[in-house]
Amino acid sequence: MSINRPIHAYAAHSAGAPLQAFSYEPGPLGDDEIEIRVEHCGICHSDLAMIDSEWFPASYPVVPGHEVVGIITAMGPQARGRQIGQRVGVGWHSNSCMHCNFCLGGEQNLCGKRQPTIVGRHGGFADRLRAHWSWAVPIPDALDPAAAGPLMCGGGTVFLPFVIHSIKPTDRVGVVGIGGLGHMAVKFARAWGCEVTAFTSSPSKREEALALGAHKAVSSVELKELKAAAGSLDFLLITVGASLEWDALLNTLAPKGRMHMVGVVTDKMAFKSGGLLSWQRSLSASPTPPPTVLSKMLEFAARHQILPQVERFPMSRVNEAIEHLRSNKARYRVVLDADF
Amino acid sequence: MSINRPIHAYAAHSAGAPLQAFSYEPGPLGDDEIEIRVEHCGICHSDLAMIDSEWFPASYPVVPGHEVVGIITAMGPQARGRQIGQRVGVGWHSNSCMHCNFCLGGEQNLCGKRQPTIVGRHGGFADRLRAHWSWAVPIPDALDPAAAGPLMCGGGTVFLPFVIHSIKPTDRVGVVGIGGLGHMAVKFARAWGCEVTAFTSSPSKREEALALGAHKAVSSVELKELKAAAGSLDFLLITVGASLEWDALLNTLAPKGRMHMVGVVTDKMAFKSGGLLSWQRSLSASPTPPPTVLSKMLEFAARHQILPQVERFPMSRVNEAIEHLRSNKARYRVVLDADF
Repeated sequence: MSINRPIHAYAAHSAGAPLQAFSYEPGPLGDDEIEIRVEHCGICHSDLAMIDSEWFPASYPVVPGHEVVGIITAMGPQARGRQIGQRVGVGWHSNSCMHCNFCLGGEQNLCGKRQPTIVGRHGGFADRLRAHWSWAVPIPDALDPAAAGPLMCGGGTVFLPFVIHSIKPTDRVGVVGIGGLGHMAVKFARAWGCEVTAFTSSPSKREEALALGAHKAVSSVELKELKAAAGSLDFLLITVGASLEWDALLNTLAPKGRMHMVGVVTDKMAFKSGGLLSWQRSLSASPTPPPTVLSKMLEFAARHQILPQVERFPMSRVNEAIEHLRSNKARYRVVLDADF
Repeated sequence: MSINRPIHAYAAHSAGAPLQAFSYEPGPLGDDEIEIRVEHCGICHSDLAMIDSEWFPASYPVVPGHEVVGIITAMGPQARGRQIGQRVGVGWHSNSCMHCNFCLGGEQNLCGKRQPTIVGRHGGFADRLRAHWSWAVPIPDALDPAAAGPLMCGGGTVFLPFVIHSIKPTDRVGVVGIGGLGHMAVKFARAWGCEVTAFTSSPSKREEALALGAHKAVSSVELKELKAAAGSLDFLLITVGASLEWDALLNTLAPKGRMHMVGVVTDKMAFKSGGLLSWQRSLSASPTPPPTVLSKMLEFAARHQILPQVERFPMSRVNEAIEHLRSNKARYRVVLDADF
């Protein structure tokens, strides 16, 4: 079997460094693991955060890549519900303990021992990737595999809030930030049946947001426009990590409205609690989803043909692709095609 | 009928001033209104905020009082479901528009025209009070009327979150601040079946909190104790308006936990969003409840004999009572007995 060969990958060897070709011995395949031949892998801002050691001190070498699509080439003896030759996707997590109450309860993404695909192990900028079988989710045939990778992290991240907060098709939904995550959120919200308002700091993205399916586009930074939208939304999804006008954004919510964060805001958030209290509003946040929600998301995406708008680079040109993303030129998600 | 006489009350005539005897002509009773002969009226921190013009510029004279218990003495021709001679309570709101979707949907407390009892009209530090019939909620016979007043604002305020967030008896609930609101919250949480942790900044109140029904008492300000409680709570109710260690308090929540505010925090709240995001936590807040929840709260309080611990003063000694509350000596709620 192929699993005794080294895995070929691209790795950063220090904070912010360009990636270099890198090989490692994966060791024996775990009993519950599957191995995937990587076909495509999206690049997410979390990959940059790990390359740059931004969130916490990273252990180098870092092999990024957690929006993986590929074909199962090997299965451990205890792997279940998957088949050799099947196309699967792997996202931010590739394992969890499988015996805590969160794992048993179907919320493996909240397991205290959840294993991020690119933290303390090597990710999908590689020819092969391993994961616990349950975290390798079958990709529906109706989805273009070359564009499906970003659904596994960014797509799932913006989809989970619709599920956990029981968003209704009658809700008025705002999406703040029209980037890698936000552009998928607009598509999901539109397909969910909602009235969709896109909030962007970039005047040029307003038209793009409408083309993606938003009913309205509003500035995310001009207080005058935010004030004009006061009280108009049931649900406001924040997909960016920048510090924003939090009080004005909270005030775009109707009574009982919810502002929900899926981007990591590095600075502290500060706001007046009165805006929450008087109108019974909520502020919440969520990480990437558990396997069942990833699966449900892929099924919904296939039915509505929701895919990210991607720009593709051969994986051998990974540094060029990263530079494209860093310079904010990506429209909207970059995908690497494995060419080892 | 008695309703053509002036109403005798106590009013502040400028910010922070002692209350003085004050009379006013109430005018004709509204078609939907009832009039109450006031028996008892609690003093809430919101009364002080209005006397002091703390939240927004108050219009003087201010007649405080929105934790009223009394007997219905008159009813307008369109008043429904109440009877002359019936004992009722009136809380923070005394009217709402009755035709918006919130009023029609049973969430009259979120009506855009909800009428606070002591803002732009005169409250219950008086011999009589008027309210829309629906906001005058019958007091169960099993509740001591002399102690029931504070249930109408403070009690309802801490009870509503249990209802809107579907708190379960299996939940681990924390209550921050053991004062007028917090001591009732501990009693409600205990009767709800929950495991209850009291958080207080006052070492002397720890024993008191246990006597009120808390299973544990922890410092609300010492970081070491807050850290030891990390991940242990499903629901954390903040009943105070002070700036606290928000990040450490959020981290006392288990995954999917919620921190909920019922006190008006005057300063901006600042915290790291990562604590919400990684563990799918929420932050929310709510105002005082609608009539149906007040009614449900009173029924629950009667069944479990939940009453605030009160200190009573004759209403003629209102300034003495206010001073007692201002000096943080109240254990835990002050009630005025009408003695006109």
